[in-house]
Amino acid sequence: MSKPAGLTGGFSRFRVDFAYDGTDFAGFSKQPSLRTVQGELLRALSVIFGEDQSDFGMRVAGRTDAGVHALGQVCHVDLSPEQLKRAGRSGFTVSRLQSLLTPEIVIYSIDQVSPDFDARFSATGRAYRYLIADDLSPKSPLSSRYELWVAGELDAELMNQAAKALVGLHDFGAFCKPRAGATTIRNLKTLKVTRFEDNIEVYLEADAFCHNQVRSMVGALIAIGQKKLSVNELSQILKTAKRVSKFKVVAPHGLTLTSVDYPEPELWAAQAEKARNLRSSEEISV
Amino acid sequence: MSKPAGLTGGFSRFRVDFAYDGTDFAGFSKQPSLRTVQGELLRALSVIFGEDQSDFGMRVAGRTDAGVHALGQVCHVDLSPEQLKRAGRSGFTVSRLQSLLTPEIVIYSIDQVSPDFDARFSATGRAYRYLIADDLSPKSPLSSRYELWVAGELDAELMNQAAKALVGLHDFGAFCKPRAGATTIRNLKTLKVTRFEDNIEVYLEADAFCHNQVRSMVGALIAIGQKKLSVNELSQILKTAKRVSKFKVVAPHGLTLTSVDYPEPELWAAQAEKARNLRSSEEISV
Repeated sequence: MSKPAGLTGGFSRFRVDFAYDGTDFAGFSKQPSLRTVQGELLRALSVIFGEDQSDFGMRVAGRTDAGVHALGQVCHVDLSPEQLKRAGRSGFTVSRLQSLLTPEIVIYSIDQVSPDFDARFSATGRAYRYLIADDLSPKSPLSSRYELWVAGELDAELMNQAAKALVGLHDFGAFCKPRAGATTIRNLKTLKVTRFEDNIEVYLEADAFCHNQVRSMVGALIAIGQKKLSVNELSQILKTAKRVSKFKVVAPHGLTLTSVDYPEPELWAAQAEKARNLRSSEEISV
Repeated sequence: MSKPAGLTGGFSRFRVDFAYDGTDFAGFSKQPSLRTVQGELLRALSVIFGEDQSDFGMRVAGRTDAGVHALGQVCHVDLSPEQLKRAGRSGFTVSRLQSLLTPEIVIYSIDQVSPDFDARFSATGRAYRYLIADDLSPKSPLSSRYELWVAGELDAELMNQAAKALVGLHDFGAFCKPRAGATTIRNLKTLKVTRFEDNIEVYLEADAFCHNQVRSMVGALIAIGQKKLSVNELSQILKTAKRVSKFKVVAPHGLTLTSVDYPEPELWAAQAEKARNLRSSEEISV
């Protein structure tokens, strides 16, 4: 999968910014015989560039799990001169790509970028939100695909207090599905719980998240909000860095990748190098 | 189907206020071998009251078409003493009914009411909204199930001006799917087009709407907004009261029944009598 930072053979790199409703997809990553976001994108690209089996060197910033949504997702694709020629006069445009997709996937922009840019490895931050509706939140069926409904009232203030205990550079092993050879050390820059009129939002920003980390931390915060877990216990669990059964990995449909941060172009290659060395053997997905 | 206004045999009438996401339903009304909102409600009621084949005398305020949503829907059901007995100590509660449904249908309240109340015929008004996103609206895939996406920019000011020409007591034959023996005269109390930050809302209130009327009027307003139809032409079309091909019946997924109005309880029976005489042979659905 891994490619040299510089592209050979005259390939051109394109950054694609897009969004999707994850409800009816088996996650982002392509899977044989399952409907996935990447599968739909590759199918559409094949129509434009005339190659059925190519993955177009696609790499994505956040490989979301089944049912997770994205509003600010980013990927890159590499296209050869032959492929670009096959696109013909209509070219590689937002409207052409969009016309080959259902409204579940929305393409915002397509930009040619320097090969230094790597949608996954150049990213310095990912932000997610998780929406929860408790008994104080009005329930609308039109929101049911995008928020977790929890019986009872959650103490959002207490949840926010607990959130502060998790912020910082830690080994998040207690919240991650283990993967061989992968580090579970992450820099959690922001974790904020806010009660809005319609729901409770858990907002998270980190350099990257390990597998299941977001949904597992949200599960822990819900346990806090239900007073089934204390802030002290949560701090202890974080310290031990071992998985526990005191809280659940919450359902995927409340989760949305909201944005991905990249440094200035002159730092793209260095950041990609750094991240690739750190995480080459692991998945970055939630 | 039609029942005398007064209930015999000791039946008790219950008003149920509820909402649904119409995306994955073949409309409100029960249909053999299709998944409908009424079908799901009847299935749940059968679990509580132990009668598989009963329709529980259910009557609904707005019989929405396939794909149409509802946030303020109302129905009534009639329950015999035997059925109520079968419900047992758990009774007929919001939480029990909800527990038998997916979050696509949300039950807000269940209240025993006088048999004078008729969810369909006592209603004096129905309000709908239709959401449209044009090129000036940000497109989010998380809204794609609930708004119509239109290419180009719509002139919402012009649409609102045209809307004024449709308000009032008119024969809306030009916008209705004809049904034998049914009147197409309606009192359109409100029709308002507003551009919001995220989309354009068409808001409509009438005593009742005939079949296809809302989606056909929205289609006409979109043609106005695209300058394919003038306000004068629309006024002429309204006057002729004959169906024309100058605009489309727009897709159902942008449409939501937002509320149903009822008069004070002492007027329930009289209003039901009046509406039943006027509309006994027709469907009220959009």
